Amino acid sequence: MLLNRERALRLMEKYGVEAIVASTPENVTYLTDFWSVSHRIIKGTQTYAVLPRMMKIPPFVVTPLSELDQAAMEEECWVSDFVIFGVFYFERSSEARFLSKAEEKLQNLLRSLKPKADAATALVEALQERGLTKGRIGLDGMNLPPSLYQTLQRRLPDVEWVDGYALLREIRAVKTPAEIERLQASIALTEKALLHSLRKIREGATESEVAQAFWEVLSAHGGVPILTCVGGGSRSAFPNVIPSGYRIQRGDLIRYDIGCLLRDYYSDTARIAVLGKPTEKQRRYYEAVKLGESEGLKRIRPGAKAADIFATAVQAVRENGIPHYKRGHVGHGIGIECYDIPHLSPISDHILEEGMVINIETPYYELGFGGVQIEDTVVVTPEGYRMLSQCDRELFLLD
Amino acid sequence: MLLNRERALRLMEKYGVEAIVASTPENVTYLTDFWSVSHRIIKGTQTYAVLPRMMKIPPFVVTPLSELDQAAMEEECWVSDFVIFGVFYFERSSEARFLSKAEEKLQNLLRSLKPKADAATALVEALQERGLTKGRIGLDGMNLPPSLYQTLQRRLPDVEWVDGYALLREIRAVKTPAEIERLQASIALTEKALLHSLRKIREGATESEVAQAFWEVLSAHGGVPILTCVGGGSRSAFPNVIPSGYRIQRGDLIRYDIGCLLRDYYSDTARIAVLGKPTEKQRRYYEAVKLGESEGLKRIRPGAKAADIFATAVQAVRENGIPHYKRGHVGHGIGIECYDIPHLSPISDHILEEGMVINIETPYYELGFGGVQIEDTVVVTPEGYRMLSQCDRELFLLD
Repeated sequence: MLLNRERALRLMEKYGVEAIVASTPENVTYLTDFWSVSHRIIKGTQTYAVLPRMMKIPPFVVTPLSELDQAAMEEECWVSDFVIFGVFYFERSSEARFLSKAEEKLQNLLRSLKPKADAATALVEALQERGLTKGRIGLDGMNLPPSLYQTLQRRLPDVEWVDGYALLREIRAVKTPAEIERLQASIALTEKALLHSLRKIREGATESEVAQAFWEVLSAHGGVPILTCVGGGSRSAFPNVIPSGYRIQRGDLIRYDIGCLLRDYYSDTARIAVLGKPTEKQRRYYEAVKLGESEGLKRIRPGAKAADIFATAVQAVRENGIPHYKRGHVGHGIGIECYDIPHLSPISDHILEEGMVINIETPYYELGFGGVQIEDTVVVTPEGYRMLSQCDRELFLLD
Repeated sequence: MLLNRERALRLMEKYGVEAIVASTPENVTYLTDFWSVSHRIIKGTQTYAVLPRMMKIPPFVVTPLSELDQAAMEEECWVSDFVIFGVFYFERSSEARFLSKAEEKLQNLLRSLKPKADAATALVEALQERGLTKGRIGLDGMNLPPSLYQTLQRRLPDVEWVDGYALLREIRAVKTPAEIERLQASIALTEKALLHSLRKIREGATESEVAQAFWEVLSAHGGVPILTCVGGGSRSAFPNVIPSGYRIQRGDLIRYDIGCLLRDYYSDTARIAVLGKPTEKQRRYYEAVKLGESEGLKRIRPGAKAADIFATAVQAVRENGIPHYKRGHVGHGIGIECYDIPHLSPISDHILEEGMVINIETPYYELGFGGVQIEDTVVVTPEGYRMLSQCDRELFLLD
């Protein structure tokens, strides 16, 4: 179970929320482990997961009938209450002597469920049938067509709709063991792919060839490339550099800001390599951002203020080699979304809690020179933090 | 240029719309060729593209300052008017003797632009400064936080906001040559990966191994896996089958429903293979759905009704081997979104136009037996259609 159920119920109680309705693929999967492909690739596809506060009302999923097989196949989905809508046809073979467990589960679901006309009807009636018709309901509005909100207001006039997306973000800020396991696997895969791609860096190699080597390893392990910024020479100063035909030269700094999606969890890692002997400036600037990260890391512990970690990290970069260093943030939570709570920024009011998973980073971009950056992921422990990143933190010197 | 500008302006005129505000990554890229990584991976990131109807107001992009390098790097982005917001720092090297073209472009943008505080302010003020403060504006609400719509209504009270997402879908329904080129490349890559993965099918091979071979080829060419349904034996009856450890047996039918995202354009293709000698039923059912597709294809031409193509295809499947065949739709447009206009369904009122790119498919799912499916992509031509799919349409017989 990905869901931090205890935290969810506690926060729902705190805010007086009777139920949360999730609408984004990330939040639906987080709440229930239900995973839908259409929800991810067909814009506008509606699928909801509802988590009521009262334990006697089981959590449920509202999904198109065409996605119901995912409930049968997917062993991780622990929810057994489904509400379906839309048109789709499954036939039953007359010759089949026996059905597999998954086929039987699907057949039983098909027998017991009657599809509603559309998503809005299915959601409204499901809430009504379960008595969720008054009080506060947290509605995740991040994947709803604008008209749906009006339908809900009209058909459930006694409900006070509050921001369920923000509430889910707060719940998701503290990770469960299942989430940490997935994050660790995602990070490890990105690091493995990074190390493999470093071997392709030689004079004349293009950024694209290096990126290609990175993707090879991801795809060999089911990782989806979502972030592949690999820039050589002064191109490393582009924060969002897109790997190009630029040929790496001796003396070039190569900046990696890379990550993947593995079993729905993000990794986001940065490292710097230099082909040949680094210049004094390359070395000094990298050491400065590395020290900034190190000093920021030292302040990570439950109760620490995100804004203090920001101030510490920026100050350390300034004192150790880049006196003019300026930055908007030095990191962010990471999980089933790439940017979770907390934000390590000067205007953040987040307080660290045990179990938060945090990316810390101190990038620096200078047009005409290049970019230096280091980015790692840690989990907050009672004593401070534990590194989830395993990759060497030194400048990679390539020959 | 991906944008069908002539069609956009014509439809804006038809509906009396003064400007379109795009909010989804797909629509922003479609309107301007601007591409942002944060827009895609950080939920809630706001980036807009605005296309005014009056030619004297140039199209513009509203984006976080941190994404502005994409405007400089990306040669395809033909828009030169940018509005930025948020906090980010770029430094300028004092030692650099010269800047590359992209670095210089970024530097010039940085010098001339002053970031606004936030996305809503940036969008509102940009519309005001350009006189877009009254009349109808089409607002793509598919990637807006619910609060933004209220801000826009309050700050631009004389604007009549209409559904810009629906309008963009209608514009995007007829593809430009640049889009067809990208679609063709995406389809060709999926087919190449399919043919490669077929070679991995042997007795005892797992679905995952076969999927792995498919991903290998995608990643070697920059394709992002977005749809990998590969199911063997009776598991092929699960429409959204997730490749598993199931070991393929002799006599198994293997259903592929697969696609990728290549340079932002989707492919979505289906084929069936059988390991060994197919049974009479496997062969008959595949022939039936193939004939359904063939008959549907024959009706594709400008002016044809989507609902008629649906009726023809379903009827042909029924008359050629699956008399009880039922289906909700037999295809959909495809482009920068996986499901575009037209929908080939009995309730569709879409009429085909030259330049539409259409996926036609006639899948059939029978629990305890398996699934058969064929899916191909065509572009509507003055005479009928041209196949973009190149893959053999026969049952793949493997040994």
